[in-house]
Amino acid sequence: MSFLSKINWRIILQILGFLLIIEGLFMFTGIPFSIYYCNYKCLSLLYSGLITLSTGGVIWFITRKANRAIGKREGYIIVSVAWVVISLFGTLPYLISGAIPSFTDAYFETISGFTTTGASILTDIEIVPKGLLFWRALTHWIGGMGIIVLSVAILPLLGIGGMQLFVAEMPGITPDKLHPRITQTAKRLWGIYLLLTAIETVLLMFGGMDLFDSLCHSFATMATGGFSTKNASVADFSPYIQYVIIVFMILAGTNFTLHYLGLHGKLREIWRNEEYRYYILFTLGFSVVLGVIIFYEGSLSMEQSIRDALFQVVSIVTTTGFVTSDYLSWPGQSWIFLFLLMFVGGSAGSTGGGIKIARQILLLKNSALEFKRMIHPQAVIPVRFNGRAVAPEIIHLVMAFFLFYILTFFAGTFILTLMGLSFDTAIGATIATLGNIGPGIGGVGPVENYSFLPDAAKWISSFLMLLGRLELFTVIILFSPSFWKK
Amino acid sequence: MSFLSKINWRIILQILGFLLIIEGLFMFTGIPFSIYYCNYKCLSLLYSGLITLSTGGVIWFITRKANRAIGKREGYIIVSVAWVVISLFGTLPYLISGAIPSFTDAYFETISGFTTTGASILTDIEIVPKGLLFWRALTHWIGGMGIIVLSVAILPLLGIGGMQLFVAEMPGITPDKLHPRITQTAKRLWGIYLLLTAIETVLLMFGGMDLFDSLCHSFATMATGGFSTKNASVADFSPYIQYVIIVFMILAGTNFTLHYLGLHGKLREIWRNEEYRYYILFTLGFSVVLGVIIFYEGSLSMEQSIRDALFQVVSIVTTTGFVTSDYLSWPGQSWIFLFLLMFVGGSAGSTGGGIKIARQILLLKNSALEFKRMIHPQAVIPVRFNGRAVAPEIIHLVMAFFLFYILTFFAGTFILTLMGLSFDTAIGATIATLGNIGPGIGGVGPVENYSFLPDAAKWISSFLMLLGRLELFTVIILFSPSFWKK
Repeated sequence: MSFLSKINWRIILQILGFLLIIEGLFMFTGIPFSIYYCNYKCLSLLYSGLITLSTGGVIWFITRKANRAIGKREGYIIVSVAWVVISLFGTLPYLISGAIPSFTDAYFETISGFTTTGASILTDIEIVPKGLLFWRALTHWIGGMGIIVLSVAILPLLGIGGMQLFVAEMPGITPDKLHPRITQTAKRLWGIYLLLTAIETVLLMFGGMDLFDSLCHSFATMATGGFSTKNASVADFSPYIQYVIIVFMILAGTNFTLHYLGLHGKLREIWRNEEYRYYILFTLGFSVVLGVIIFYEGSLSMEQSIRDALFQVVSIVTTTGFVTSDYLSWPGQSWIFLFLLMFVGGSAGSTGGGIKIARQILLLKNSALEFKRMIHPQAVIPVRFNGRAVAPEIIHLVMAFFLFYILTFFAGTFILTLMGLSFDTAIGATIATLGNIGPGIGGVGPVENYSFLPDAAKWISSFLMLLGRLELFTVIILFSPSFWKK
Repeated sequence: MSFLSKINWRIILQILGFLLIIEGLFMFTGIPFSIYYCNYKCLSLLYSGLITLSTGGVIWFITRKANRAIGKREGYIIVSVAWVVISLFGTLPYLISGAIPSFTDAYFETISGFTTTGASILTDIEIVPKGLLFWRALTHWIGGMGIIVLSVAILPLLGIGGMQLFVAEMPGITPDKLHPRITQTAKRLWGIYLLLTAIETVLLMFGGMDLFDSLCHSFATMATGGFSTKNASVADFSPYIQYVIIVFMILAGTNFTLHYLGLHGKLREIWRNEEYRYYILFTLGFSVVLGVIIFYEGSLSMEQSIRDALFQVVSIVTTTGFVTSDYLSWPGQSWIFLFLLMFVGGSAGSTGGGIKIARQILLLKNSALEFKRMIHPQAVIPVRFNGRAVAPEIIHLVMAFFLFYILTFFAGTFILTLMGLSFDTAIGATIATLGNIGPGIGGVGPVENYSFLPDAAKWISSFLMLLGRLELFTVIILFSPSFWKK
């Protein structure tokens, strides 16, 4: 685990090869839909799968005898490179079928999928062949699998942004060895992820959705992604469907180790989790306030006002990005509530992106204590989280994370504005991609898409999605000279 | 100096009474201009001065036997209350003359003066009687006097936002006693302030300005205020005048303890000051880049392009807010450069507002070190500033300050948007008042003013000016329950 040893490139390549094999196999799963709905060029998923699988196979075969020592440095490199390379191969179905002819657009759409962002360059989703829409939803779901392991097992080990504090050790998992621990954690959490996806699919079908739409929307929900198969997003479906999706967005935005506790009947422990309590109370409270505003200033029924508010608040806080209502046209300027919510983010250890609720809690608690510290300069006054005192180093990491987030937000807005985007569109695109949400404000609002952005702006946005998804530091550290020094 | 004793309200009142006496006397200084230019209602300054002076005198007389013990708590209260109450009496000339009939408007204009912001509700400045315009400029100058003492002598003692690090001890001043130390520091720095104001006045008159305009602009420059006597601000004057004002804005945005060192011939020590080096190099470098952009994309001469860029960059970095060019109409979207500069702020210990350059340096240095710390988690890696290691507590205070600043910015934008301001106007008004700049972006841009804001938004903006000017904590701590506990 030393940073000073030579980088073990062979094991990095081996893992990458392995991931490409998995990706290729996943591509094949869309073929049944391609054949069933066979519109045209049904076989692009088959070709893409074969290319990806064989490339992965060759890389894996060449590097199969690699030394299996994985240090922190290898960890950082694998995580960033994996998302970039997997997205590269993920463009193949779009490019081979010609559904998205531009490489820039295809890469944007794919990394938006794998980072579970849900920002799209498609102007008419419904003409895209179903097999490809399935692949599009699947990129979310695969990305979500990656994020669960990343946030619960890998980032805490790498010490990113205080994550070690937020994600409890899973009971019964031995913390001494890196490899078996990640494997065990992953298996258990993926089981939960799969189970919740299956339940949601069944519940959606129960509401009249066909299997295809149910699967695609379940993938996008559980990954907090947001790609829909409909141009009108979830507004196209019944209130029942919308309520089901609300519930599963909330589940997807919850720390997955809490689901694990829940399945073992430890419900009291869940409610003792401070982040969870804030998450639930804050989301519901906010939705009711907003729903009442929409009701009194608008022309909708009370039920629909509350449902629309609840759906959009949950969709944005969990960073899913599904849409049932054009919030930019809400009465007054109540959309500004939603804009501010874009800075909150889901729970740590969930598939949600953004700053994360746990970090917000620590920052607010620490800010409130600053005054006590000013009044009693000699006293040591620690922040308490889940009943325990938090070390000052963790607070420092969280503050540093927030600072980087804000700086990245400013830099992103700045660069996008210089590329010709209007000021509010630049702000909207930056926070919606950096926060892995999808729809933003301005020209990239809930009923718009990202197709009109200049190519360079699409690449910048793609990079912002990657940055946000990998909690900034994982990516930025690769640009730090000290990382590459012996 | 204990926080736990009872608050000594009598000494607070006594100091307030004393400050009102001074304010009343200052009002009289505008009377010669009122008489010379006598437009109408010349005597409003006389009446206002008499009311202020006598109120101050009565308060001072009643509390003259107060116990002279001033603790930290009294310090916080005096600082905040002084700015609020002085601004209250400062509205009298506007109200009595009828030049600004609305109390809300008059208070906005006055606190904008005393906080050296320079945001104005006047739509036609040139019809306002000269005596009142003199008082308007004088509110800047008096505010600047207060700020110098506050930032160099009082805030470091109160431990606000790391200020103790940025402002060097003045040589030859004994740090053991609070009262004589503040008095000595104040006298020396006010001497420099007066001297620079006098030199600027002479240089402006040399360029053809009359005594009245020269004095008003010198007051506004040295305080980094920004109130002009002309509707077109400094665009109304010759290039020579503009260059003089550029130089004096730079001097006003410099740490005043460095001027003290400079007057004692210690020029090498000035250049060793890291904040000063960044301030000068950053401001000049940025101006040249921006000037070249304006030149190549616009229709101005090279000299005027560079001059306009330099003037606006210096005006915004120092938080003065004078205008020579409508930067919102600059080619491309290069105004976004200036918008981002609004978050920088002047030097610590200057009359400039905002986050301050020294804090930005510490934040950026600390951010760069985070990666080193991640790679070597065991090592203690401190930030170095002016050649010395900075204590982690100071870094924490600076980060906390930045956090509060960003939170206040978001909250301000949010509230102003809900009051009906457009999104970009709300952003512009918040940063321009919180940063004590004056003109912002959107509807409160360089050729606009604040008159069209609803009254409630004017009060919010006034509060933001106060918050920004007193480095947030000084004001917010008064709302903290632990402040008032025994």
